[in-house]
Amino acid sequence: MITEICLKAKAASIELAKLSAETKNTAICRMANALEANSKKILTANKTDVEAAKAKGLKTALLDRLALDQHKIETMAKELREVSALADPIGTIISTWTRPNGLIISQVRVPFGVIGVIYESRPNVTSDSAGICIKSGNAVILRGGSDALNSNVAIGDVLRDALSGTKVPVDAIQVVNSPDRKVAEELMRMREYIDVLIPRGGADLIKTVVETSRIPVIETGTGNCHVYVEEDADLEKATPIIINSKCQRPGTCNAAEKLLVHSKIAEQYLPIVIAALKKEGVEIRGDQKTKTIVAGVKLATEKDWYTEYLDLIIGVKVVKGLEEAIAHINKYGTKHSDSILTTNFDKAMRFIREIDSAAVYWNASTRFTDGNQFGLGAEIGISTQKLHARGPMSVQHLTTTKYVILGNGQIRK
Amino acid sequence: MITEICLKAKAASIELAKLSAETKNTAICRMANALEANSKKILTANKTDVEAAKAKGLKTALLDRLALDQHKIETMAKELREVSALADPIGTIISTWTRPNGLIISQVRVPFGVIGVIYESRPNVTSDSAGICIKSGNAVILRGGSDALNSNVAIGDVLRDALSGTKVPVDAIQVVNSPDRKVAEELMRMREYIDVLIPRGGADLIKTVVETSRIPVIETGTGNCHVYVEEDADLEKATPIIINSKCQRPGTCNAAEKLLVHSKIAEQYLPIVIAALKKEGVEIRGDQKTKTIVAGVKLATEKDWYTEYLDLIIGVKVVKGLEEAIAHINKYGTKHSDSILTTNFDKAMRFIREIDSAAVYWNASTRFTDGNQFGLGAEIGISTQKLHARGPMSVQHLTTTKYVILGNGQIRK
Repeated sequence: MITEICLKAKAASIELAKLSAETKNTAICRMANALEANSKKILTANKTDVEAAKAKGLKTALLDRLALDQHKIETMAKELREVSALADPIGTIISTWTRPNGLIISQVRVPFGVIGVIYESRPNVTSDSAGICIKSGNAVILRGGSDALNSNVAIGDVLRDALSGTKVPVDAIQVVNSPDRKVAEELMRMREYIDVLIPRGGADLIKTVVETSRIPVIETGTGNCHVYVEEDADLEKATPIIINSKCQRPGTCNAAEKLLVHSKIAEQYLPIVIAALKKEGVEIRGDQKTKTIVAGVKLATEKDWYTEYLDLIIGVKVVKGLEEAIAHINKYGTKHSDSILTTNFDKAMRFIREIDSAAVYWNASTRFTDGNQFGLGAEIGISTQKLHARGPMSVQHLTTTKYVILGNGQIRK
Repeated sequence: MITEICLKAKAASIELAKLSAETKNTAICRMANALEANSKKILTANKTDVEAAKAKGLKTALLDRLALDQHKIETMAKELREVSALADPIGTIISTWTRPNGLIISQVRVPFGVIGVIYESRPNVTSDSAGICIKSGNAVILRGGSDALNSNVAIGDVLRDALSGTKVPVDAIQVVNSPDRKVAEELMRMREYIDVLIPRGGADLIKTVVETSRIPVIETGTGNCHVYVEEDADLEKATPIIINSKCQRPGTCNAAEKLLVHSKIAEQYLPIVIAALKKEGVEIRGDQKTKTIVAGVKLATEKDWYTEYLDLIIGVKVVKGLEEAIAHINKYGTKHSDSILTTNFDKAMRFIREIDSAAVYWNASTRFTDGNQFGLGAEIGISTQKLHARGPMSVQHLTTTKYVILGNGQIRK
């Protein structure tokens, strides 16, 4: 089954790579319209998934992610229309130069070919990923969580129907219709056909994909993000930044999970910021010093410093200064997003230079690490690896390049 | 052992990332001087390797790669000096923009951190890789073939000695001093410490690394390159291009391994080009049609179309036209370098658009796919994968980027 899917995807990708921006955009808008026109069909399939998940005793948070409603489907359609409106990266000439022997060399942006996406229980990932992949000229093979299988297949069918009658081949979108883990493992070995594999989900999913895949993987997501408050920070600005980083949407990968505070201001500032966090319902897990300064704080374990809570919990640690803060973040962090709050230029620059993360902030909330917030457009994930793309990945990051060399008989001497 | 090497490399990479271009260049020039000053020591170690290899019955071609002499050491030193003279990619600001909320976002070029290089019997790869990695601000862990172990360790010692007394940490260069395959496998699993792994060698080595590694890999090298002669090609230019592509250095990955000829000119042109190839000592393996047109041609098997000979052998096939040529190349090729010889613009553009290779040529030899020939500077290999870097990889391709976000209290709404 997987080989057949791969062969179809490969064939579709060759056609897709030739299409104009206009043709792709028209198809993506038809996909958006089709989602809205077929919402009933999708919601019926989703209901089957949700009921089975309830019977299995799935956690409320996971049920929330799985369940669709009319509004969520409209959002999926809206997001497809936004993707259709983005600039088309394909065919962009990145640079052109002439060599002394007269060869004209250009580096041109081209699609990858076939992209595999492996994800969990959110069915909206099906349409989001399909839209971004088609926009960037790639065929996509989608393998969602088994809990969402009926929903994903229904969304896939609707999107594929929308493509028939356009110049985009129907097989540019394929949903793997099997809950079997073996099938997913087989997919991850199809290096011959799939150019890149993107896991979208929690740390466990990503770990499994990294360990199983023979296809190049772009790791996304895990964010154990830090805010560090220097002794000279503007504390009136600090508290809103910390609250925003932690609480604005605690379940996201760019939410802060740790707060580091310079020892010189710890006695003065910790009671203020901890009170503000508690007011927002945040559980505090502090180191010994934090506990000494503020009563009623739970003691953080070594494991806490590594943990991405994705919840209203924060780890708080008093550090001697910038050097300890940088060492702590580079040791325990996940290279996602980290922020320093300081009024001192030199300290900020040292933090920016030495923190080994995709996004490094000075005096701002970590919550801005996002394709739309950065002004890059809809994203397929936030890369925390260093190869190919780092940070929010949008349409242009789902492309590769090709050298085109024009000559008139040149040979190498 | 491997964990200790990784920890040292990681620590060195943090220091290395902070250094100025001047500091790194000075260190690389010292490395070059040290190679020349210690050539005796290196040649003695190399003699041990060569004698052991001879006793083991290693093939002449491999012995040639393994053996060093005074001239080869001088070339290694010269190449290091060339790397020191390249532009430093680190710290380059790729773009900067301001968001409506006042956040100033910059994308900045930074080193990967730690690079692993796994290679075969050529000891010069040790110094080449070390130079390119240090230039790009990365620590490097080098694991060469067991046949070259004494040579590699000697070169490593000389280079490390050269670093002591500079600001580049000695552990920025480490040679794995063990011929044990298990040790290499352990190295390939160190995802926590090594940011990217580059295999340099033949198809078997690359396959092993791709299948074993848990670290992101950049595949290099395998080149089953094609030259396609259209019916309207300028045949006076065609023959020198084909001879150059095949014969100028047949053991390299950018040498042509296959010749496709349009059926309309096959009867006229095949006798001419085959005679010219034979004059250069090239063995011809043709399809049935080629055999019919030119007597004394060996019949090519299905396997031949997939094979990278790296030798004075060429596969020759008559094709119906552009479509068959493109399909053949995309099926049997290795996505390295392919060339069309035609006087027709539309045909050239179609070939360029549809051939899925790192370098696509119009009327030029495939032999130009090379960092220096492209004007990019010394290369660490030619990437045939689509992720991160495609085509010749030079100093700038051994870097990643980081988003730096400057604010004055911004929070996400």
